[in-house]
Amino acid sequence: MSSTPFASRHIGPAEAEQAKMLAEVGYGSLDALVDAAVPTAIRAHGELDLPPAASELEAIAELRALAARNRPMTQMIGLGYADTVTPSVIRRNVLESPAWYTAYTPYQPEISQGRLEALLNFQTMVADLTGLTTANASLLDEPTAVAEAVLLMRRASKAKSSKVVLDAECLPQTIAVVRTRAEAVGIEVEVRDLLTGLPDEFFGVVVQYPGASGVLRGHGFYQGISEVAKAAGALYAVAADLLALTVVTAPGEFGADIAAGVTQRFGVPLGYGGPHAGYLSVRSGLERSLPGRLVGVSVDADGVPAYRLALQTREQHIRREKATSNICTAQVLPAVLAAMYAVYHGPDGLKAIATRVHEHATGLAAALREGGIEVVHESFFDTVLARVPGRAERVVADARRLGVNLGFADADHVRVACDEVTTVDTLHRVLVAFELEAHAKAEGSALPESIVRESGYLTHEVFHRHRSETAMLRYLRRLSDQDYALDRGMIPLGSCTMKLNATTEMEPISWPEFAGIHPFAPAEDAAGYRELVDQLSGWLAEVTGYDKVSLQPNAGSQGEFAGLLAISAYHKANGRPERDVCLIPSSAHGTNAASAVLAGMRVVVVACTGAGDVDLDDLKAKVDSHRDTLAAIMVTYPSTHGVYENDISEISRIVHEAGGQVYVDGANLNALLGLAKPGEFGGDVSHLNLHKTFCIPHGGGGPGVGPVAVRAHLAPYLPNHPMLGSAGPETGVGPISGAPYGSASILPISWAYVRMMGARGLTDATKVAVLAANYVASRLGPHYPVLYTGRGGLVAHECILDLRALTKETGVTVDDVAKRLIDYGFHAPTMSFPVAGTLMVEPTESEDVTEIDRFCDAMIAIRHEIDAVAAGEWELAKSPLRNAPHTAQAIAGDWDLPYDRALAVYPAGVSPKAKYWPPVRRIDGAHGDRNLVCSCPPLNAYEN
Amino acid sequence: MSSTPFASRHIGPAEAEQAKMLAEVGYGSLDALVDAAVPTAIRAHGELDLPPAASELEAIAELRALAARNRPMTQMIGLGYADTVTPSVIRRNVLESPAWYTAYTPYQPEISQGRLEALLNFQTMVADLTGLTTANASLLDEPTAVAEAVLLMRRASKAKSSKVVLDAECLPQTIAVVRTRAEAVGIEVEVRDLLTGLPDEFFGVVVQYPGASGVLRGHGFYQGISEVAKAAGALYAVAADLLALTVVTAPGEFGADIAAGVTQRFGVPLGYGGPHAGYLSVRSGLERSLPGRLVGVSVDADGVPAYRLALQTREQHIRREKATSNICTAQVLPAVLAAMYAVYHGPDGLKAIATRVHEHATGLAAALREGGIEVVHESFFDTVLARVPGRAERVVADARRLGVNLGFADADHVRVACDEVTTVDTLHRVLVAFELEAHAKAEGSALPESIVRESGYLTHEVFHRHRSETAMLRYLRRLSDQDYALDRGMIPLGSCTMKLNATTEMEPISWPEFAGIHPFAPAEDAAGYRELVDQLSGWLAEVTGYDKVSLQPNAGSQGEFAGLLAISAYHKANGRPERDVCLIPSSAHGTNAASAVLAGMRVVVVACTGAGDVDLDDLKAKVDSHRDTLAAIMVTYPSTHGVYENDISEISRIVHEAGGQVYVDGANLNALLGLAKPGEFGGDVSHLNLHKTFCIPHGGGGPGVGPVAVRAHLAPYLPNHPMLGSAGPETGVGPISGAPYGSASILPISWAYVRMMGARGLTDATKVAVLAANYVASRLGPHYPVLYTGRGGLVAHECILDLRALTKETGVTVDDVAKRLIDYGFHAPTMSFPVAGTLMVEPTESEDVTEIDRFCDAMIAIRHEIDAVAAGEWELAKSPLRNAPHTAQAIAGDWDLPYDRALAVYPAGVSPKAKYWPPVRRIDGAHGDRNLVCSCPPLNAYEN
Repeated sequence: MSSTPFASRHIGPAEAEQAKMLAEVGYGSLDALVDAAVPTAIRAHGELDLPPAASELEAIAELRALAARNRPMTQMIGLGYADTVTPSVIRRNVLESPAWYTAYTPYQPEISQGRLEALLNFQTMVADLTGLTTANASLLDEPTAVAEAVLLMRRASKAKSSKVVLDAECLPQTIAVVRTRAEAVGIEVEVRDLLTGLPDEFFGVVVQYPGASGVLRGHGFYQGISEVAKAAGALYAVAADLLALTVVTAPGEFGADIAAGVTQRFGVPLGYGGPHAGYLSVRSGLERSLPGRLVGVSVDADGVPAYRLALQTREQHIRREKATSNICTAQVLPAVLAAMYAVYHGPDGLKAIATRVHEHATGLAAALREGGIEVVHESFFDTVLARVPGRAERVVADARRLGVNLGFADADHVRVACDEVTTVDTLHRVLVAFELEAHAKAEGSALPESIVRESGYLTHEVFHRHRSETAMLRYLRRLSDQDYALDRGMIPLGSCTMKLNATTEMEPISWPEFAGIHPFAPAEDAAGYRELVDQLSGWLAEVTGYDKVSLQPNAGSQGEFAGLLAISAYHKANGRPERDVCLIPSSAHGTNAASAVLAGMRVVVVACTGAGDVDLDDLKAKVDSHRDTLAAIMVTYPSTHGVYENDISEISRIVHEAGGQVYVDGANLNALLGLAKPGEFGGDVSHLNLHKTFCIPHGGGGPGVGPVAVRAHLAPYLPNHPMLGSAGPETGVGPISGAPYGSASILPISWAYVRMMGARGLTDATKVAVLAANYVASRLGPHYPVLYTGRGGLVAHECILDLRALTKETGVTVDDVAKRLIDYGFHAPTMSFPVAGTLMVEPTESEDVTEIDRFCDAMIAIRHEIDAVAAGEWELAKSPLRNAPHTAQAIAGDWDLPYDRALAVYPAGVSPKAKYWPPVRRIDGAHGDRNLVCSCPPLNAYEN
Repeated sequence: MSSTPFASRHIGPAEAEQAKMLAEVGYGSLDALVDAAVPTAIRAHGELDLPPAASELEAIAELRALAARNRPMTQMIGLGYADTVTPSVIRRNVLESPAWYTAYTPYQPEISQGRLEALLNFQTMVADLTGLTTANASLLDEPTAVAEAVLLMRRASKAKSSKVVLDAECLPQTIAVVRTRAEAVGIEVEVRDLLTGLPDEFFGVVVQYPGASGVLRGHGFYQGISEVAKAAGALYAVAADLLALTVVTAPGEFGADIAAGVTQRFGVPLGYGGPHAGYLSVRSGLERSLPGRLVGVSVDADGVPAYRLALQTREQHIRREKATSNICTAQVLPAVLAAMYAVYHGPDGLKAIATRVHEHATGLAAALREGGIEVVHESFFDTVLARVPGRAERVVADARRLGVNLGFADADHVRVACDEVTTVDTLHRVLVAFELEAHAKAEGSALPESIVRESGYLTHEVFHRHRSETAMLRYLRRLSDQDYALDRGMIPLGSCTMKLNATTEMEPISWPEFAGIHPFAPAEDAAGYRELVDQLSGWLAEVTGYDKVSLQPNAGSQGEFAGLLAISAYHKANGRPERDVCLIPSSAHGTNAASAVLAGMRVVVVACTGAGDVDLDDLKAKVDSHRDTLAAIMVTYPSTHGVYENDISEISRIVHEAGGQVYVDGANLNALLGLAKPGEFGGDVSHLNLHKTFCIPHGGGGPGVGPVAVRAHLAPYLPNHPMLGSAGPETGVGPISGAPYGSASILPISWAYVRMMGARGLTDATKVAVLAANYVASRLGPHYPVLYTGRGGLVAHECILDLRALTKETGVTVDDVAKRLIDYGFHAPTMSFPVAGTLMVEPTESEDVTEIDRFCDAMIAIRHEIDAVAAGEWELAKSPLRNAPHTAQAIAGDWDLPYDRALAVYPAGVSPKAKYWPPVRRIDGAHGDRNLVCSCPPLNAYEN
């Protein structure tokens, strides 16, 4: 905190620096610059209607007041969310460490080895526990993970059926999310008590393990499903509780093809529903069909083992309209927490926790039975279902008075879920609520003998070597020291808006009043959350010009999906179900197309002009040829080319006239806040990326939050939630996330940002972001042509540097420049998006001119190195460009390159005291894809 | 937190590892080992009487309950403590960052450049603001800083007088602490209203600026004192408020020789009194008399500017009985916070804060006057003294009901101190308490025109370049990345006990309920603190075998001083004031002697035997020759030689018999907890080091806490405090720290440690610490002789490796080995203490065997390197030993050494991924002492 206005801390360049930058760009003031850059027609009038900016101290005080309105109870509701103890060494040194939370997605693997190793631990943990061969690097939550499993089964199954069978014991939110997702793509969902068998035809079946009511069945039951599925040509997915898997048979051991679920109870706070890391693992043969991020092992230029994202060509942003999933992120930060929880506890520790949880549950069951209360299931892991005819409501209410939230199953049944924090005292309170005085004593096992786990897991050394806090602390530091994040320097990634994630914004998410709320707790327990959600939704509506906002989508891709579902539902409600064509400009982010496909739409691509704008003629032609089936157009504004297109109003007019809806992708909102509102200049719906414009840190590749904002006519079709009516409209499209408010626990970050910036601060931030991009364009333009510009030759908040001519002339690629930037101490700009052979630079408002100049100087120095290659001074293969990045190890050994070591690692402007050392040299991605290894390699793999 | 027993996280070696270590040492069990090592006569019987170990979760819950009993009010009490806003980016990335708080004192400057730079910022800040040339790197608090100033004036003054004059406007706790310190060394203290002039003879005068009542006087007043002092041959010290100095004339500008005070209001939480960083600065000519740590600029082996502690030979541990101060630490962590606050705000920001504070005060004064209430002082900075005849008590009580603590000056006067967090709303509440409705409006300045500051300050670039949070974050990371702390690896420093500082122990100190309490707030506001203090005191008494504990001393040196004062007072009370001889073994830490001197004792040194033990014959002789004047013996147990001496009981008997008291220095208590109790085996008094045995982190060189523990007969002579009667005995020796409970806000760390370890855990920790030291001795003995051993050839918790023969043979020094260890990724052991030419290794219980082996392997590899020098393979001057540490920069350049680069930086066992890179090469300390520079050098000094 600080008593200085927060905006002056958030915005990098102080006034004098802004003046210097304006002089370079050739404008006399910020206002003159934005007046020139932003089309007059779309400019918003007047100031944003937001509360006056609060100081950091005031914002924290207000958040404390909101937090005080939440009631963290002892949570025994279950249903896929279990309380857990976050080891404080992990909380402080991961969740609260900028080195971890300000990192970007590991697309530049050479400078991301630390979090890639952490994610490999995650994958190994999931694969081991589920008994399957390959796990991805996390998904958004359990319900979406199961939905992805369903889609995977449909793709991989040879069965002709379009039916998936869901266990009636599946979590209610899982069933609801799968229904939402399935309906959009024509999958039939049958929910069925699997004790009654399976239908004749189906392409997949999902079993909850243990069931939502707590039930566990014998080996024969689970194995039997596998056999029936195989006979039907169907696939078999198991939604499994990872803690239970330390004591019961792994799904892979009874024939499951897929396991899905969530790792929340491995040390990740409840947080009123998220963010948590979902997981998905598959048997051998299905790994190349896995959606989401996958970390794999490859080698660097020196043959040293190195990690990087594997099989990227199967991802949605590459496959576009052929995509089978729109997942383009992971939940890296929660996944790291969960993986480190397993590293810290090891297999023995996890099993001890599971055993204690189980003993509490069996003790409770015994006491209930002793007191004459029927326990419905003979076999269970952590959840006891008690039959109390007509008394369930009263038992639950009595428990609440004792500080415990139990699960209200129905009028006659109460669910009691034990977890890592359950104590004997907790159980006593529960028994009092049941009007029993009996003491709970652990009593044998309630695990069916036939499914007691005998196979080992987490045998890799990493799960055995960090058992003391000292060892754990050092492991976390060693990993993060290998990585480059915003705490080291600029990450000028176009379209990703890597701005400041202020500490004051981050602090509240660790508070127990935000961290300790179960997503299905009674609404009164979450009054503070509700007010925060309402305020933030209102502010987001105000700044975007829309009427209604849903904060449920827990990633931008999910926001997109929700927005498109709203459009579909709107057309259907208007009697035009045939409207299913979604126009997408060729420059769009691939996820746009993928989301459209998953929303059941047909994608029609609209061409761009040479200047990078949407080709109006082609648009008109496409609209004409699909006039009757036109559902929507998806456009990004400013465009993915980083330019304020003049034609946005005309584009909207054309599409609206044809009965289509206009979807404005909010990815580039950082160029608009306070200057223009998508909801006013033509948009019917947008999704926002709170992890871009609204300061939620990227967390090394997630979590994100992707609210969807709509005009009033689409509001009835926003997401809702079966467990909380007030979370969305009755007429909504169903849930698209597991929790009513998605990743609620990180919303205080964006709340604090808006609260502390105020109308003026947000607008200034936009202006300075535009200034910074134009400053970079101006400084670098003479060295690398700026591909697209708009009015007045200006760019918006980012600029594309065109290297294609240089590449043609010299062979130096964008990859070479990106890797060489590492030697200069920078994260590369966005590579080859949206145009291959280019670099897209977005400096954001948070970088001061010293840092921006350091970047520009580095780029210019690299240009001189390219010139040296062009002039034949260096052969490209032996140039510092192609051999970048250079490690300390490389200069410690023999040296036969035609430039000297100092030039390799301390090129112009690099201060030895600020030097970032990449841990590996350039990584050979193709090698890893040919030899796919996605779990921790043995330590001797590193021996040379 | 974790649901695993905390002791298993705190103690590094798990059971299997312990077995391996025991096998190496040759014992079958931990108990067998300690039975062999620890003399039977001193062994404690039975288990410690402590509450059963709490889990991390339970301990945090209990601390939350204690915290909830504190009441953080709006604090306007003043008297040297002002509320402030800790910038959250600094809190998270310094106070809550292990890279900062687990660092050791920067005695190895090559691996401490980050915090040395931060301290140089601190010194520059203090020197600039006070207008003097040289500031030290912080002292303990304002009262002790003023006491040090008084001692310095006595040393430096030519006046014959033994009188020091204190301004009646001095803070009451300053007057009290100075009295305690002065009385012990025969300095006469006169407290005087300086408007009445000065006495004829005095050696020094201290003025409070502004006064405790808030008053500011004109330039003539302050300048006049300077002239009178000069004429009397006396020196002039000013206790100045640094925030006020941004707007009023610097003490150096009106003739002060010395400035003293505290930097708390620069972003350091009130914390019920500490820890804060005191400061001391002096005019040119006095710098070599400055007590405490002093950071200076020198150069490394390549001529690159580098920082290190300057003028170390003047320090107390070198000067021993000739010492003039017993200060052997600084408050590094709070000093870094304060310096970074200045870096973040810059001169303009600080001045803006000061101006706002001043405007609030003038507004308040105007409103009071308008309401007919007399404001006593015309001129003031932040504190308004209101005259309310007979009503003061009621006004203060009414304000408390409105959440504000005002200062009760006397029955007729109320003091209202404004600070950084004061708002208009605060002022309204204050006015309501005065029964006024008038609104407070800022009104002109209440600073005397003649002392408005015109000179500049903080002109160095560092105070101008980190104005955005992003820039600040990166600066903090860049600095900490240069340093080596416990989060990177082992710090095997003998006598310093660098064990785990667990996160769960650290978390509560950031909570507002602990951070926001004024030390002079009514006792009911600090009920949680009081209970914590009582519990912790009780536990410490139990584990040491004493009857009473005072937590007031805020450093080990102060605990020593308090303990010796208690002995003196005891003798005086028994009618034996002539007992003033303090026996100290020659092996003792130098601070022992320094403390004795400052307590007014005469030091008599007792010889040690060749085996390192106290020479009983010499002891008897010394006791005989000083039998009538014998006050005490100070012994360390286990000895500073790391050995359990057999004769401790006999030593106690001899001294007691002669009427002396036995002072057992608790520095090595980590070898005793649960095994033996000093209060039972002969000690009358001990001080403990909570920053050693009880897990308060070293913070890069402070804060520490040094409680004093006594047997019942000394309890009446413990420290007490004028502002809080319940903080000590009525018959006490007066305060020795500014706050009643010293550095209260870090006591939760030690509380949590004891609470989570329990009797068994503490005892196990001791046993494993002894095992680890013997394991190291066993592994390294064949390569470096272990100098001293005790029973069974065993050491206690540390061991001394004797390099003297090797040095004689090869020229390789302990310095060479220490610096070479940096290349291997280690902090050096303690060098040349207690025996020159040796290294003392204390692995502690927190290091697991993997890390201890890594260290032993490095030491053995270094031994092989020494052998290579001995064999003539390398000339010493060109060996990796003498050229260590090697920087990355060194291997990037030309290389003409006879070993290759890889051997230099990746010697045996160093993993490239875990490599720590020192930022500079070996530093030339003498160069810096010859050319003393103790403030930030201009940036071009780094240009080569």
